[in-house]
Amino acid sequence: MLHWLQHYRRAMLPGDISAGIVVAMMMIPQGMAYALVAGLPPVAGIYASIVPPLLYALFGTSSTQSVGPMAIISLMTASTLAPLAAPGSALYGVLAAQLALLSGAVLLACGLLRIGFLANFFSRPVMSGFTIGSALLIAWGQLRPLVGGMPPELHLPSALLGLGALALLAWSRSYLAPVLRRAGMAPAAADIGSKLAPMLVVIGATALVAALGLDARGVATTGAVPAGLPGLNLATSSGHWQALLQPALLIGFMVFLISMSGAQALALKRGEKLKSNRELVGLGAANIGSALSGGFPVTGSMSRSAVNFSAGANSQLASIITAALLALALVAPSGWLALLPLPVLAATIIVAVLGMLDLSLLRTAWRYDRADAAALLATASGVLVLGVEAGVVVGVALSMGALIWRASRPHIAVLGRIPGSEHFRNIDRYSTETAPGLLMLRIDAGLFFGNVEAVNERIEDELAAHPATRHLVLVLSAVNAIDTSALFGLAELNTSLKQRGVLLHLAEVKGPVMDRLKESSLLQALHGRLFLSAAKAWDDLVDS
Amino acid sequence: MLHWLQHYRRAMLPGDISAGIVVAMMMIPQGMAYALVAGLPPVAGIYASIVPPLLYALFGTSSTQSVGPMAIISLMTASTLAPLAAPGSALYGVLAAQLALLSGAVLLACGLLRIGFLANFFSRPVMSGFTIGSALLIAWGQLRPLVGGMPPELHLPSALLGLGALALLAWSRSYLAPVLRRAGMAPAAADIGSKLAPMLVVIGATALVAALGLDARGVATTGAVPAGLPGLNLATSSGHWQALLQPALLIGFMVFLISMSGAQALALKRGEKLKSNRELVGLGAANIGSALSGGFPVTGSMSRSAVNFSAGANSQLASIITAALLALALVAPSGWLALLPLPVLAATIIVAVLGMLDLSLLRTAWRYDRADAAALLATASGVLVLGVEAGVVVGVALSMGALIWRASRPHIAVLGRIPGSEHFRNIDRYSTETAPGLLMLRIDAGLFFGNVEAVNERIEDELAAHPATRHLVLVLSAVNAIDTSALFGLAELNTSLKQRGVLLHLAEVKGPVMDRLKESSLLQALHGRLFLSAAKAWDDLVDS
Repeated sequence: MLHWLQHYRRAMLPGDISAGIVVAMMMIPQGMAYALVAGLPPVAGIYASIVPPLLYALFGTSSTQSVGPMAIISLMTASTLAPLAAPGSALYGVLAAQLALLSGAVLLACGLLRIGFLANFFSRPVMSGFTIGSALLIAWGQLRPLVGGMPPELHLPSALLGLGALALLAWSRSYLAPVLRRAGMAPAAADIGSKLAPMLVVIGATALVAALGLDARGVATTGAVPAGLPGLNLATSSGHWQALLQPALLIGFMVFLISMSGAQALALKRGEKLKSNRELVGLGAANIGSALSGGFPVTGSMSRSAVNFSAGANSQLASIITAALLALALVAPSGWLALLPLPVLAATIIVAVLGMLDLSLLRTAWRYDRADAAALLATASGVLVLGVEAGVVVGVALSMGALIWRASRPHIAVLGRIPGSEHFRNIDRYSTETAPGLLMLRIDAGLFFGNVEAVNERIEDELAAHPATRHLVLVLSAVNAIDTSALFGLAELNTSLKQRGVLLHLAEVKGPVMDRLKESSLLQALHGRLFLSAAKAWDDLVDS
Repeated sequence: MLHWLQHYRRAMLPGDISAGIVVAMMMIPQGMAYALVAGLPPVAGIYASIVPPLLYALFGTSSTQSVGPMAIISLMTASTLAPLAAPGSALYGVLAAQLALLSGAVLLACGLLRIGFLANFFSRPVMSGFTIGSALLIAWGQLRPLVGGMPPELHLPSALLGLGALALLAWSRSYLAPVLRRAGMAPAAADIGSKLAPMLVVIGATALVAALGLDARGVATTGAVPAGLPGLNLATSSGHWQALLQPALLIGFMVFLISMSGAQALALKRGEKLKSNRELVGLGAANIGSALSGGFPVTGSMSRSAVNFSAGANSQLASIITAALLALALVAPSGWLALLPLPVLAATIIVAVLGMLDLSLLRTAWRYDRADAAALLATASGVLVLGVEAGVVVGVALSMGALIWRASRPHIAVLGRIPGSEHFRNIDRYSTETAPGLLMLRIDAGLFFGNVEAVNERIEDELAAHPATRHLVLVLSAVNAIDTSALFGLAELNTSLKQRGVLLHLAEVKGPVMDRLKESSLLQALHGRLFLSAAKAWDDLVDS
């Protein structure tokens, strides 16, 4: 804990300060926008950006991760809460905090149980499909606030403001950095400068609303915002807690996956090492902190963390500075927030999520591995058609299916002797000699419940192809482990082969595997023999 | 389809006839008993034993599998239907048929989609734990009908009848076969004879009830049974169909697992080959048939199939004969069924399920692999504490967790050169030489989303342990596949290493893997080189 603080050097301070300021400028419009996505008042996004990063700095391991509201997690929050309460109601806010508390508890528990390894199991195509589907869903949901009505119907002043902001933001996304560079800024600074466009657009639009009195002409704004953090309120019925439990599991899972995929990309750039169980604890603490300070579920955001990183963040001090600046924005006179036009926030959301629509993985997968491309498209369709939670389930099911399919196809080679040598090789790849009555198979995978049937099937196939076989030698040089299911499988194979006049022999059993087998009755029951090497088996069995 | 019929030889007939008769004698009491476990009138067990085996004979692949009611599937049926309808009500019977229809549809769909491989994924310890938990749960549920009341309260005539039958059945289970052998029967015949004890006990008890008028003295009996198959009735509200969908998935899954584990044990004895996708279709058809003929979910029963096998069944004709005999029992005057005492049926259930309490796997696992023993106990406890459906979920979760854990720990060896040779071996096992600045790692597993993080972590660890490294060579001789996630992982590793002054090289890439990689941009982007062999990499990189 606070490992980074013990090793803090003064030279790291300037980078942390500048990154802290830049990310705060980015966080204010983003936090408010993602609160809207979650169905909450914009100010909740500011609340959720203060305590969570502080707690993450205390418990997490990434030095540049920026924890706070994030589009996809907000979408999941909204889809969980929509059937339970009316957006904007007091109950809705309480349920959002409860959801953050439960998600945090799930993350914390997983971290303490050290089961972070479970989260390796969303393949990248599935993650990409999930992101694409969610981004489209979020963008679609913002169309209405963008133009102040359901298209084709629209509210003209709102639509002009929203579409104008959208055009400006889309332009700056692609062209602002080059313009700044041509104006003489250093490339890195120009890149960072372009990330502040949403803040500038939001400030400009707010000024415009104030100057033209657009709020009186029907443009929706955030409205009055109470100063300071809200009071703590987490009490509802136990029925609500129960309804939130399963969504909290899914949200906790996605919080971890989204945060890790971003943090890992940055950690790779620095040769920094993340500890997944510590990350779980950090994210769990951040979500519990969010719940206790009027927020909603939060996670590490890839886009913000990347800005934090390139703006020079050297440690979590940058995030602490960001949090302090957001707290200041709350205690400072916050009247300015009241006139912030919602169509402009909708525009910032749409531009941000459409930036997540990265199709390069789909293109690569389409060329490289059609099954992965299909998994990506299936997950994206799952999110779009069945909703974001069903999308997670589809993604997990596809990833698990792929894993099972892979595990159930172990590589098995029929071995022959390279003439005149003691070497045994795959007969399909080398020119080898075999002996009638002797079948030697090398299994290139640990034996466990997932492949025991596949191994059995392959053995039966080979026996059918070599009907003269009297001795079957399993060469276990690549078998690192044999679990209980496979142990029983081998014992049954031993018995069944004997009934058909074939002896089962084992060769090249590894030390640790042999130690285990000695604890079982397989070795005594074995009708065949145990050979130290394939060559020894050949010599003894071909002569006999 | 009907492959066995095309190859039927007259010599197979006597075995099939005798097995058909023996299994029918076993099936009548068992079918009725398991109908009771499912919460249905006993006659439903006879219905479920006629059409399903006929359809399985048409579509399935095992020659000796006996398909019909089975204790665990009946328990799952009861636990699904209990909250939806009162046992014994007409609605309950309709829902049981619907459940069979849905389970059958699930099985059929899985078979047609050819995803039978998914069912390899219940490890044996988990399956054993599930069976043990279910057996205890079923036995516990039969205590009340056994003694005609909730102990310590009991109904004396019922209790005498039930406990007497229990003692007799328990005795014959262990001692009848030896007695028959000593009386001069052949060992095989004596074994089969002992399996008919339940039928004899049931007949004797029914005669006793009739002779002593025990039904008038309060002993519960099956009551009047309508002759012939019942009319078709599957119509209820759509809400019911929805409530049955998820249980049908679980039941379909367990039907397949239970049937396969039994059939595979027998297939091994005969060197017969089962096709899992064909089995799915056969079991699916059997359950749909059960639904259409007044039955409930059915599966292949290990105990009945074993009797079928040892009584001489050579083909599915044996099962067809069994089905014909059960149909005869229905159209024959079935008044005799009315006086069958329920305490005796309860006794047959208890003896049958306690026979499933096989602790040998637990004992073996306890000695051989403590983690497998823990999975067994956790699954058994899950069934006992949370119920049978939650038990399936616990079992799947444990099996998947084990699979993920295993996949996320690929074996990776640091290679060194055996001095004076072109051979490269694990430096921990062989005495080898290494070169400063050159790190060679052999990855002994296909690269995919499940281990890409683990591989990255290991590489970072090795780089930290060898800080002078300038060239990292990944020796891919054992890598059979690289999926899209791992492709991106390698590309990122390539970039990240370059930033730290390390070049990434690949060596001994297999042909099929190379063909795939050529479709990607990794090879062009690679900062290091591609070597045909580890020796070539050593020669070129150590000189440079």
